[in-house]
Amino acid sequence: MPTFPQLALPSRRVTSTDVAREAGVSQSAVSRAFTPGAHISAPTRRRVLEAAQRLGYQPNAIARSLVTQRSGIVALIVGDLHNPFYPQALSQFAQELEEQGKRALLIIHDARQDVQETLNAARSYQIEAAIVFPTRLNAAPPSLGDVSRGGVPVLLFNRHLPGHNLLSVACDNFAGGRLAAQVLLDSGAKRLAFIGGDPQTSTHQDRLAGFTERLSEAGLSPIAAPAGNFQYDWGVQATLDMHAAGEWPDAIFGANDIVAIGVLDALRHLGRRVPEEVSVIGFDDIQESARLSYRLTTIRQPLEQMIADALQVISDPQPASGPRLHPGELIWRETVRRTL
Amino acid sequence: MPTFPQLALPSRRVTSTDVAREAGVSQSAVSRAFTPGAHISAPTRRRVLEAAQRLGYQPNAIARSLVTQRSGIVALIVGDLHNPFYPQALSQFAQELEEQGKRALLIIHDARQDVQETLNAARSYQIEAAIVFPTRLNAAPPSLGDVSRGGVPVLLFNRHLPGHNLLSVACDNFAGGRLAAQVLLDSGAKRLAFIGGDPQTSTHQDRLAGFTERLSEAGLSPIAAPAGNFQYDWGVQATLDMHAAGEWPDAIFGANDIVAIGVLDALRHLGRRVPEEVSVIGFDDIQESARLSYRLTTIRQPLEQMIADALQVISDPQPASGPRLHPGELIWRETVRRTL
Repeated sequence: MPTFPQLALPSRRVTSTDVAREAGVSQSAVSRAFTPGAHISAPTRRRVLEAAQRLGYQPNAIARSLVTQRSGIVALIVGDLHNPFYPQALSQFAQELEEQGKRALLIIHDARQDVQETLNAARSYQIEAAIVFPTRLNAAPPSLGDVSRGGVPVLLFNRHLPGHNLLSVACDNFAGGRLAAQVLLDSGAKRLAFIGGDPQTSTHQDRLAGFTERLSEAGLSPIAAPAGNFQYDWGVQATLDMHAAGEWPDAIFGANDIVAIGVLDALRHLGRRVPEEVSVIGFDDIQESARLSYRLTTIRQPLEQMIADALQVISDPQPASGPRLHPGELIWRETVRRTL
Repeated sequence: MPTFPQLALPSRRVTSTDVAREAGVSQSAVSRAFTPGAHISAPTRRRVLEAAQRLGYQPNAIARSLVTQRSGIVALIVGDLHNPFYPQALSQFAQELEEQGKRALLIIHDARQDVQETLNAARSYQIEAAIVFPTRLNAAPPSLGDVSRGGVPVLLFNRHLPGHNLLSVACDNFAGGRLAAQVLLDSGAKRLAFIGGDPQTSTHQDRLAGFTERLSEAGLSPIAAPAGNFQYDWGVQATLDMHAAGEWPDAIFGANDIVAIGVLDALRHLGRRVPEEVSVIGFDDIQESARLSYRLTTIRQPLEQMIADALQVISDPQPASGPRLHPGELIWRETVRRTL
């Protein structure tokens, strides 16, 4: 086995000065060797690059950014990652950014903090843009606006603030709520319930509003619409609570997939058959919805398309006139009764 | 409703020059106002801070880093995020870093790329350290060593490369494999199977080695030990394959929780009762293992402790002498038969 250098740690970084000394050239020649289009002879450039490789030197993207004013860093500001939709989105965002030669600065936003503070902290890293994933923004919209003065585009992903023209790319949650109602009505459901997420979020509000509107067109209204949060445990608890209260819907719309999966587990626990006794539909199409034990019928968010759109918007930001909406897609699986 | 400034986007950033002009002071006064301990009068500092606030100016952490040589950025290099263990770890890492006033640069490593390239790209962002989550490093260890020459500590998280003294913090996967065997033997199992993960990873290898060693002490060996990957679908498929081959274990050790959850779903699909006919144990203790529909008995990785240790190691890196191991903890739930 070849000897393998310890991954430990000289007390300082390799600098362009070290490379210049190693290559026997001036420091400015090192700088030119790493600047596209700069004037430098081919042999000198080769000598510099070889010296740089021997020493493990990398030109400094951040120092370069101070000149070009383009750091290549995009902040992704997320709340908690309990809802599997977000790790999936995050992973795809980071990958897409990398394909554009950029990097994701991951920032966990504590819901107890002011979003403004989180954004300010992010901006101190010379970010090109910030993408804000659903957190409870409604609590503090006025301060968010201050960020615009610094000139860094901030885009809300899958979220909008009604009444504020913030950059926003979202699934059309209202239309998705209507679609969920339509599918359940078509299956013959008469007693429909909505198990909501965090009531302070636009995703919850829009899905519920679309759902309710479509039901009212059929002369119905939800028999129950408890709100809670977007987590598994809440889906379980809300279902058990409805059972305890003697409310028996024949169809349940879960505010998102992970809530709907909690609903399915609780129904199984209660011995209720899906979809024979009760239909269930979710929203998102997270990976586990396709699992053998769930096979959840759901509204898929067109994540790939939404991410591409978001990256396009921040790369060439224009004044927003409301959120850019992408329609959800119905994914048929096995939790909604089919009427033939 | 107050008018709300559009989150759009002057063509350039607010600089210290703008703040100096707004405050009617010199640029150096602005710089001193943002430097702890610098000489500046209280009224001048106040004028600068007020002007900075009006303009939305933030002192530049990155420019500052060029002086202090501490960027505050730690790269987290992850493979795919399909295994829910990693989003959980990632989220906790980012949060811990934030509490130390640092930030996580998230880098998705494509398994087809050379890890070296990914690390080099990360280093160009003046990172203080890199934490590498399990990817198939074994394929390319020699090039990894080159990174050490640049002086940035690189720590492997929950992974080690046998024969190489890289910085590494991991769960004691070998001892965990022994513990899983012990628990299943204690439950009375005689025909034990291991459903492995990616065979090129140390997590797979160490868990299997520990499991096998403990079985051999009892005069047994695994009746099957198929290897695949660390994903749900593989757990399902491996179980269905064993069934098709007529192999009936009375206990299964899933290489990680998400594989074990696939095993549970497949067993349910096949109508096999857990734990009456077959016991199942996993590894990790991801959140969904606690769900009503799984209640998976598992070996918990002490994630909080491992993360704290990793951050301590990179903040004061010392030559490594093998991985720093943390013992896993048995979490009793309902998928292993209890013998009373």
